[in-house]
Amino acid sequence: MEQVIAYINKNYDSYVEQLKQFLTIKSISTLPENKADMKKCAEFVSDKLKEAGLSKVQIFKTEGHPIVYGEWLGAPGKPTILVYGHYDVQPVDPIDLWDSPPFEPVIKDGKIFARGATDDKGQLFVHIKSVEAYFKSVGSLPINIKFLIEGEEEIGSPHLEPFIKANKDLLKCDTVLVSDTSLFAPGQPTLTYGLRGLSYLEVEVTGPNRDLHSGSYGGAVANPVNVLASMISKLHDKNGKITIPGFYDSVLPLTKNERENFKKLKFSEKKYAADLQVAELSGEKGFSTLERTWARPTLDCNGIFGGFTGKGAKTIIPSKATAKISMRLVPNQEPKKASKLFESYFKKLAPKSVKVKVTDLHGGYPVLTPLNHKATVAASKAMESAFGKKTVFMREGGSIPVIATFDKVLKAPTVLMGLGLNSENLHSPNEHFNLKHFHLGIKSSAFFFKYFAE
Amino acid sequence: MEQVIAYINKNYDSYVEQLKQFLTIKSISTLPENKADMKKCAEFVSDKLKEAGLSKVQIFKTEGHPIVYGEWLGAPGKPTILVYGHYDVQPVDPIDLWDSPPFEPVIKDGKIFARGATDDKGQLFVHIKSVEAYFKSVGSLPINIKFLIEGEEEIGSPHLEPFIKANKDLLKCDTVLVSDTSLFAPGQPTLTYGLRGLSYLEVEVTGPNRDLHSGSYGGAVANPVNVLASMISKLHDKNGKITIPGFYDSVLPLTKNERENFKKLKFSEKKYAADLQVAELSGEKGFSTLERTWARPTLDCNGIFGGFTGKGAKTIIPSKATAKISMRLVPNQEPKKASKLFESYFKKLAPKSVKVKVTDLHGGYPVLTPLNHKATVAASKAMESAFGKKTVFMREGGSIPVIATFDKVLKAPTVLMGLGLNSENLHSPNEHFNLKHFHLGIKSSAFFFKYFAE
Repeated sequence: MEQVIAYINKNYDSYVEQLKQFLTIKSISTLPENKADMKKCAEFVSDKLKEAGLSKVQIFKTEGHPIVYGEWLGAPGKPTILVYGHYDVQPVDPIDLWDSPPFEPVIKDGKIFARGATDDKGQLFVHIKSVEAYFKSVGSLPINIKFLIEGEEEIGSPHLEPFIKANKDLLKCDTVLVSDTSLFAPGQPTLTYGLRGLSYLEVEVTGPNRDLHSGSYGGAVANPVNVLASMISKLHDKNGKITIPGFYDSVLPLTKNERENFKKLKFSEKKYAADLQVAELSGEKGFSTLERTWARPTLDCNGIFGGFTGKGAKTIIPSKATAKISMRLVPNQEPKKASKLFESYFKKLAPKSVKVKVTDLHGGYPVLTPLNHKATVAASKAMESAFGKKTVFMREGGSIPVIATFDKVLKAPTVLMGLGLNSENLHSPNEHFNLKHFHLGIKSSAFFFKYFAE
Repeated sequence: MEQVIAYINKNYDSYVEQLKQFLTIKSISTLPENKADMKKCAEFVSDKLKEAGLSKVQIFKTEGHPIVYGEWLGAPGKPTILVYGHYDVQPVDPIDLWDSPPFEPVIKDGKIFARGATDDKGQLFVHIKSVEAYFKSVGSLPINIKFLIEGEEEIGSPHLEPFIKANKDLLKCDTVLVSDTSLFAPGQPTLTYGLRGLSYLEVEVTGPNRDLHSGSYGGAVANPVNVLASMISKLHDKNGKITIPGFYDSVLPLTKNERENFKKLKFSEKKYAADLQVAELSGEKGFSTLERTWARPTLDCNGIFGGFTGKGAKTIIPSKATAKISMRLVPNQEPKKASKLFESYFKKLAPKSVKVKVTDLHGGYPVLTPLNHKATVAASKAMESAFGKKTVFMREGGSIPVIATFDKVLKAPTVLMGLGLNSENLHSPNEHFNLKHFHLGIKSSAFFFKYFAE
């Protein structure tokens, strides 16, 4: 093990250089114009898996973006780990708020700035490099390993579940290892045992068949923007609870033990609010901020648009207005069911004077992993060895829909060895990744292989 | 008079050709990139005034777009008419909904299609041509005339009021003649005696200092889009009344006589709704559609935007959301006061978790003109002579802020000899102008000069 760790330390600078190359590729999965970049990025990952010493490295085409696979099964009788990650990234707008171009990585104060730095290129790269360190230092791994790296996580992984179902034997494993979540605090080893699910919808409200002069027609017809605003306002009650009938029926309540554990974590609401420059935090009454973001369902408008949005004034009653609305779900809510409940309620909120269209764009299941699984225990010990601190356990508000699929199809629980930080602007301008955690992550990964083999 | 009318009939085709030229000029006053077109358009108007036989034709520069002036004062002892119009037009978006390019006029079924056809190039051109017909047929006019044609009506005429105040003597007149409103029905001579005023504002709601991942942060902070929606929804009560405290205090109620006159007008709510393809009309309870659009104040969102508005999905809590909001005002509401009332109430609606910015973009006073003024009586008779039908009197929901200025500064009442139709898509794609009304308008204008002189 000492040789492996020494090798990691010695080659760390080269790892950072390779990560920089990875981050120059514009792998935005949602934009059709980046299709070629997606292919290029899959090839980059494939090359790095080969360089690391894996065999059977292969790029699987899908109807969307490609999936990269690689394996090494040279430890018979030992358990098998499936590493999952995604090489696609979020769009970059608003582009003018970036301090440096999103695909020209820059290192400042020990952090690397680029779109995808923390979500998820930097984090997934950790495990490729820990595998490489084993092969290049001691020649083999103590466990069997498989890599499954996809390019559609940011658009809801539409082709991954069918791929997993069609390749059950290929992907057979004892546990799944994922780094795509956050540390609770800088330098604090953390394992995440719960994730929220997601339903993402688009709603469109149409009034008159054309934009109308707001003078001649103002007062005659329902205005789709005003109507949409009113419908959105009715989705929450005055206590911040979601008003959709039946929405909370399948919500698993927080246990007393969990609420106590969360309370023990060092978390300052004041500092959190100050970081976001808001005068007060806000949400469902009766729950702390950690409880609300980790273990309670939420509903947010991700975008809204309608009518005249340019500079100056245009006096119209718009013909239509549109909003993107997402719901974060918790165990045991089901995304399709949540979307159906939303659609049926939302349509009921509409006055007769408008037409409403609801489109279910994508969704993902919430996840809860047992804390006593031997992979979780090994991962906790591994992070402690690398970081030199006791590991804490948390839940996370984001969604990785595929984790539920691993559980259901591969019957394998997932270790969420998150290495990012919520403050690293994932999905925002100036996304970055703390390189100290990159370094400690590679070591944590190496220790995990050792402890999980024992 | 017969010679004048004969001349108009003979030269009508050439008038249409000239109007076409007028409509090719992209005089969009709100867009900085069209500044040169605005200048070109002012020169076009100036040339046409000269060709018509006016003297002292002059282009006055302003800090915005130029004002065109011309006069003929060769009828001493006779009254003076000031013709007002505007050569600027609305933006053309959404451009993809136009059947033909907005600045390439096309005639179809006796209608001319182009941006500005009815609002206001086609309508103002009528009076230039009637003046020309007098000079070219009988050599002089029976009245004195002045033209004041501006280029900033669609952006709230910011430089016109100072110009009028600074040029009181130049613009001195007995009545103002404006064609920038609508006929009640095709072929129905109509005079408009009331206009609504306007307050146009932009509101911006800011939450967190950056876009946030809606998974990690959903439930922690107030979402500016949801908050803005909720604030907008509170601007009306369930009866469609505006909830701003004090908003209705200065509203002049409709008289019993007016309500009866409106009821007599041939108006089908069913046909009106069918034209707009809405299942039902909507607005303040207790008033008919004509009453609501002509004589009751209203509040509409003209546009809204915030967060991710592209194709596909982006899971963010936006940092801010913006809306354009306009209020149509009625006598005796004051635009600045209405804006102040709005701002103060709107800010009170905001939770502590967001910051709110309100910008008053522009405004205009409502107008009510006496029905027994001799100019109104002459105009009514003139339209009857041209159209061969009795003139009806109506109010109009749109705003022409400058009319109040004429009243206050020049002490002159305005004759609103509207020749457009509300169905002519002013401010929308496929704006057009019925050429039959163009022709009858030129004749009405010529008759008006004669009757007003008597």
